Amino acid sequence: MAELPAPWGPRLKALFGTMVAWWRHLHQHPELSFQEVETPRFIAERLKEAGIPARTGVGGRGVVGVVEGARPGPAVALRADFDALPIQDEKDVPYRSQVPGVMHACGHDAHTATLLAVGRVLMEERHRLRGRVVLIHQFAEEVAPGGAKPMIEDGCLDGVDVIFGTHLWTPLPVGRVGYCPGYAMAAADRFEIEILGQGCHAAAPHQGVDPILVAAQVVTQLQQVVGRMVDPLEPAVVSVGTLHAGTAFNVIPETATLTGTVRTLSPAVRDRMEVLLERLVRGTCEAHGAGYRFRYERGYPALFNHEDMTAFAAEAIGRYAGAEAVERVAPVMGGEDFAYYLQKVPGCFFFTGAGNPEVGASYPHHHPRFDIDERAMLVAGRALLAVTLRYLLGDEELERGMATG
Amino acid sequence: MAELPAPWGPRLKALFGTMVAWWRHLHQHPELSFQEVETPRFIAERLKEAGIPARTGVGGRGVVGVVEGARPGPAVALRADFDALPIQDEKDVPYRSQVPGVMHACGHDAHTATLLAVGRVLMEERHRLRGRVVLIHQFAEEVAPGGAKPMIEDGCLDGVDVIFGTHLWTPLPVGRVGYCPGYAMAAADRFEIEILGQGCHAAAPHQGVDPILVAAQVVTQLQQVVGRMVDPLEPAVVSVGTLHAGTAFNVIPETATLTGTVRTLSPAVRDRMEVLLERLVRGTCEAHGAGYRFRYERGYPALFNHEDMTAFAAEAIGRYAGAEAVERVAPVMGGEDFAYYLQKVPGCFFFTGAGNPEVGASYPHHHPRFDIDERAMLVAGRALLAVTLRYLLGDEELERGMATG
Amino acid sequence: MAELPAPWGPRLKALFGTMVAWWRHLHQHPELSFQEVETPRFIAERLKEAGIPARTGVGGRGVVGVVEGARPGPAVALRADFDALPIQDEKDVPYRSQVPGVMHACGHDAHTATLLAVGRVLMEERHRLRGRVVLIHQFAEEVAPGGAKPMIEDGCLDGVDVIFGTHLWTPLPVGRVGYCPGYAMAAADRFEIEILGQGCHAAAPHQGVDPILVAAQVVTQLQQVVGRMVDPLEPAVVSVGTLHAGTAFNVIPETATLTGTVRTLSPAVRDRMEVLLERLVRGTCEAHGAGYRFRYERGYPALFNHEDMTAFAAEAIGRYAGAEAVERVAPVMGGEDFAYYLQKVPGCFFFTGAGNPEVGASYPHHHPRFDIDERAMLVAGRALLAVTLRYLLGDEELERGMATG
Amino acid sequence: MAELPAPWGPRLKALFGTMVAWWRHLHQHPELSFQEVETPRFIAERLKEAGIPARTGVGGRGVVGVVEGARPGPAVALRADFDALPIQDEKDVPYRSQVPGVMHACGHDAHTATLLAVGRVLMEERHRLRGRVVLIHQFAEEVAPGGAKPMIEDGCLDGVDVIFGTHLWTPLPVGRVGYCPGYAMAAADRFEIEILGQGCHAAAPHQGVDPILVAAQVVTQLQQVVGRMVDPLEPAVVSVGTLHAGTAFNVIPETATLTGTVRTLSPAVRDRMEVLLERLVRGTCEAHGAGYRFRYERGYPALFNHEDMTAFAAEAIGRYAGAEAVERVAPVMGGEDFAYYLQKVPGCFFFTGAGNPEVGASYPHHHPRFDIDERAMLVAGRALLAVTLRYLLGDEELERGMATG
Repeated sequence: MAELPAPWGPRLKALFGTMVAWWRHLHQHPELSFQEVETPRFIAERLKEAGIPARTGVGGRGVVGVVEGARPGPAVALRADFDALPIQDEKDVPYRSQVPGVMHACGHDAHTATLLAVGRVLMEERHRLRGRVVLIHQFAEEVAPGGAKPMIEDGCLDGVDVIFGTHLWTPLPVGRVGYCPGYAMAAADRFEIEILGQGCHAAAPHQGVDPILVAAQVVTQLQQVVGRMVDPLEPAVVSVGTLHAGTAFNVIPETATLTGTVRTLSPAVRDRMEVLLERLVRGTCEAHGAGYRFRYERGYPALFNHEDMTAFAAEAIGRYAGAEAVERVAPVMGGEDFAYYLQKVPGCFFFTGAGNPEVGASYPHHHPRFDIDERAMLVAGRALLAVTLRYLLGDEELERGMATG
Repeated sequence: MAELPAPWGPRLKALFGTMVAWWRHLHQHPELSFQEVETPRFIAERLKEAGIPARTGVGGRGVVGVVEGARPGPAVALRADFDALPIQDEKDVPYRSQVPGVMHACGHDAHTATLLAVGRVLMEERHRLRGRVVLIHQFAEEVAPGGAKPMIEDGCLDGVDVIFGTHLWTPLPVGRVGYCPGYAMAAADRFEIEILGQGCHAAAPHQGVDPILVAAQVVTQLQQVVGRMVDPLEPAVVSVGTLHAGTAFNVIPETATLTGTVRTLSPAVRDRMEVLLERLVRGTCEAHGAGYRFRYERGYPALFNHEDMTAFAAEAIGRYAGAEAVERVAPVMGGEDFAYYLQKVPGCFFFTGAGNPEVGASYPHHHPRFDIDERAMLVAGRALLAVTLRYLLGDEELERGMATG
Repeated sequence: MAELPAPWGPRLKALFGTMVAWWRHLHQHPELSFQEVETPRFIAERLKEAGIPARTGVGGRGVVGVVEGARPGPAVALRADFDALPIQDEKDVPYRSQVPGVMHACGHDAHTATLLAVGRVLMEERHRLRGRVVLIHQFAEEVAPGGAKPMIEDGCLDGVDVIFGTHLWTPLPVGRVGYCPGYAMAAADRFEIEILGQGCHAAAPHQGVDPILVAAQVVTQLQQVVGRMVDPLEPAVVSVGTLHAGTAFNVIPETATLTGTVRTLSPAVRDRMEVLLERLVRGTCEAHGAGYRFRYERGYPALFNHEDMTAFAAEAIGRYAGAEAVERVAPVMGGEDFAYYLQKVPGCFFFTGAGNPEVGASYPHHHPRFDIDERAMLVAGRALLAVTLRYLLGDEELERGMATG
Repeated sequence: MAELPAPWGPRLKALFGTMVAWWRHLHQHPELSFQEVETPRFIAERLKEAGIPARTGVGGRGVVGVVEGARPGPAVALRADFDALPIQDEKDVPYRSQVPGVMHACGHDAHTATLLAVGRVLMEERHRLRGRVVLIHQFAEEVAPGGAKPMIEDGCLDGVDVIFGTHLWTPLPVGRVGYCPGYAMAAADRFEIEILGQGCHAAAPHQGVDPILVAAQVVTQLQQVVGRMVDPLEPAVVSVGTLHAGTAFNVIPETATLTGTVRTLSPAVRDRMEVLLERLVRGTCEAHGAGYRFRYERGYPALFNHEDMTAFAAEAIGRYAGAEAVERVAPVMGGEDFAYYLQKVPGCFFFTGAGNPEVGASYPHHHPRFDIDERAMLVAGRALLAVTLRYLLGDEELERGMATG
């Protein structure tokens, strides 16, 4: 298996202990989306230590560092998100969260530590670099409308030619990297339906309009949207997450309220879902003489990996990143606001395996016992360096570096 | 137990063998609704033999005889229907139907034989009679729009003050008579729903509109009309009897067609059902982007027994008809075009028990093995005579007749 | 219209102002079921004032007075319930409830005032009385298991031959009395269904079992029990009053919980409902790979008015109670623990009209603005006296009293 | 654009008129699956004319020709199917079907004509060939169990190293070729569900078990299998194509019968569908007290294109076949028994565009007006030759041929 050429690979490896320390620090001090204060300060301090010029407060709470190469060339952006989740850390480890009810249960802390190390390596060796690397430390990925959009609006992609990012991924074993050209993560929308019935005594249902029954018809028929109205080759999910109605067993309530999510990859399917859902609710309510309120909130769009950049990244990682396996993986129905960057510039967002049952890294993301194999940060760092350097220097110069580094 | 006073009771009893012979003849020669030819001819001949003036072709195929009493008084109508059903007689008896696929599986033949005997007795003793008895032999009760309506339009109720009729009833044991004041038999309507989808390959359902699925939603929600939108104290039934769609397992068809029936007692509920059914179909089709055709055909109205006349009949039968028991019974959700007569004049339609497992009379109406206990005709004849004579003569004169007859 | 003979009628009428005062006092001081303290004390004091021997704490919190007639004869029981409801009184009247969140919104206070006045009249004139009158003041009618059962177990019906009771009823105009022979009020049962699914991310529904969808199938099919599995002539209601599941729009929850009520008149139908409901839940859960918990709690049985006693009461009230109209009414799908008394001794429970929009008595029972036309108490008192005195004295002696009173 | 090197390309092109003539002949004389007589005779005659040794009656009605190259080498199989469909040809062209109700509405006639021409070219130039080409003319592709399986059992793949085939495809414009690595066509299964209810009068539904209502629940919940129980990233379709129940609008029938199809790509999902469908039917019937018969017939398995051979074919076609565009296409949810060959040996089945609205080739497959742009046969022939020759000769020898041919 190939390795990332010197000096890049060895320099990164030498920083592994630092990365772990940074990660553990962040892991113990998680901050919720849109409430990040100490985390961007920590990032800014690390960038300053490394001598990387940085701008803070980008788009609100983002931090953007820039490493200028010695020679002119294109600009590559790398992005790491840094917010945490409202989950109570249930791990029994020294580095568990010290903030009650808040936890880095998705790996954003590791993304951050990785990108800090990558930035430092690039800065140290910028005399060998062409072009420019933009280090995007993003706040608030977990909660729509997210931090990507305001950071883009605040200029973080200005002049950027291509962007890469990765997500540590416990379903994939550590040492492996997964890529998925085209639509790779879902558009994640939210809907809320209120069925407006008419309350009455449960013994005289004909005097009212039963909103629970209408809600049941809506829940049932939502699955028919997926099974009948969408191309079976186009992934789509409609799930009702909550349904609440009534306060007494012997009273028909006035209303029933449902909330749920729609996941799609294709934008055309997404547009259609919103229309189909409302049509279904409208017709069903009309069938029963009920009214309704329907609200459909669009979350992040589907994440589209550019075919060329994905092939480029897959080859770069395979050659240089030390990954035991670079494999094509299926899309994921979760959402990710990296999608917004890819709407502006070409690029690729890939998955870096972080799972390893032997070290307790066997829980799914957002689980109270979520943990990673720390070596995943090294793989992720190599992968980000590999795509960046291959893009800026090309294989020949990069490999020459190895010989002479 | 009281008996029908002489000469009426004994005269009727003397005719029992004749009644049975008539009944067996008719049973062997059934004719379908609106196709009756030999049956009205047979009736007309019997009336002629008895010297009863009669009009044939009433309202189409009906026969109406009139017995005029010696003294003036009110007019009582008695009605018997005479059509048969498209059912293959599966009984193994000498008097089984000789017409393939046609059968008197509802007792109309026995109604006819009974009324012929009752008419003969009244004619023989008309010197004792006040007023007038109109003998309505009606065609086509089994199939809407039925024979009652055209016979009324053709004048069969002209000058009539009150009407009585009975249905032999195998769920009730022979010897018993059941009455039900108010709504006693259901309005029986028919609906036909065509779901207009859009055909396509079964592997690409999103290219069409699946009418089978829409039909399934309609079938499901029809029961919600009964369970939620109708007063639980008001009997109502919605049943789908047929559902047909598609010709190939791997093709989504264009349409699905349902037919069914709605049964109600209250006219207000009936009106509401038609509106609710169409609303439900309209809304459900809209929810799925399908079209529809909806047809609601009103059959016979609910049969309403006048309270006074029902009480009068119940008492008359209890006193004179030899019934072992006159009992109040629940309404029946079947339909009956006797309802039309009762919309014009007061009266009562009651049930005469005809069931007796020992003689094979244990099958429900419309069953291929339907049969009656022949003695039920004697009970029915006594009951009809009892209500007629009590109405025309009063208890005193009728009972005096017993003493001196 | 006839009047209740003197001295009974005039004596009751003279107490009308007192009845109103008692009622208003009770209305301002309502007590919840099984928490009645002041109300039974108030009743016991009134009985003592009237010189009526009484036992308190019967079956828990009940009070039973006994009026012994001067001559031997049968024993008649009269019952009034005295508990209130957890409803905030929203009426703007001087006599509104003074207890926050508690209200006599069902007329039990008026039942109590009426029976106190009836007892006083009977006591004053007991030298004219034969037999005995048992005055049952019952606690806790609103909440199963109710007070009737323990009071019966504590002997309140010992030696009693017949029982009567009435419910003031605002859907019926003041001045009218409604009776219903046979099943007149429903068995009111409660069910609770917990669907045991398996939680998962809303974007990966195949990794769990969606309990909301299963609940929707259960809700839908419950109406099919009513529409398909129960005789359409047998009233039955199944209503789901509450359905709760889930806490996040993007998570499939573990469970969904439904509660609801079943109302039936016929005990056979009631037995069948419990079996059918569990069968439906079991099969539906099996179809989806879900588990369930099913709990069916029987409330009061259906109230069965004995045919003879109902006819007796209807005639007595028509003759003596000053009711403008005694009419047969349809059953009511609400429950009532008077049913338990009628399982032990013959009797009748009837409805006394209390509605009158002109005085604000136009709200349904259990409504926060529920009120009665106070004159209904006079009608109810006359009706209870009428049935009692007719039963103990007979028409002749009672009417003679009128002539000489 | 590259061309197929001489002599192969020019020889094939010279046969274009012959191909068209053959195709038009076959198009006018279609034969149904498993009833092919004249078609295999026609094929055998053409092979004989070309001097290609052939075996007839292979696996029943198949014909297999073998072209032996001059030098040793591997064996490549090419397959064309030759059965037609029970569809009435509604085209108004000289070459329309002469057999009433039977039509080549799927292009198998063109597959046959193409392979005959390809075989002739290979035979003519076999002195340049290494290895062996097996020409598989297959009967009965349209109807499971199909002809592929018995032909394999009869040895048609013996000694074969790799297999290729193509389907003319009107959704793709003529001149384009589509490939799909991995699962490319669906497993197509058939299910039949009979709901065993209990017939009764429509006015007394409680006396029976309503199979139409149960069928409606099954139809509804089948979509829940797709929407809830299958990974949204795994394509799956469940469609009900027919639903038939009942003969009279006023009778609840005994049974309801559904047939439908299940389409899947992943074998694991396919296995699960069968289990889930029966579980759903069993639970739903149990919920209603109905019985059932469930029959699940597996049709062709999903067609799996080997990754290597697909890449090999895509490159070969791009280089030599004259295709304007070789593009990756999405899987197709239709079935194809070419899947069986690919279970035995590596290979690839690709789509050759045949659509062209200007010549009337704009109807979907199985449509009564289905037609192709005849030039598609030339593209298909070039593509088959390209993959075969590249496999047997390699790029270098093949391209050298061009120079010296």
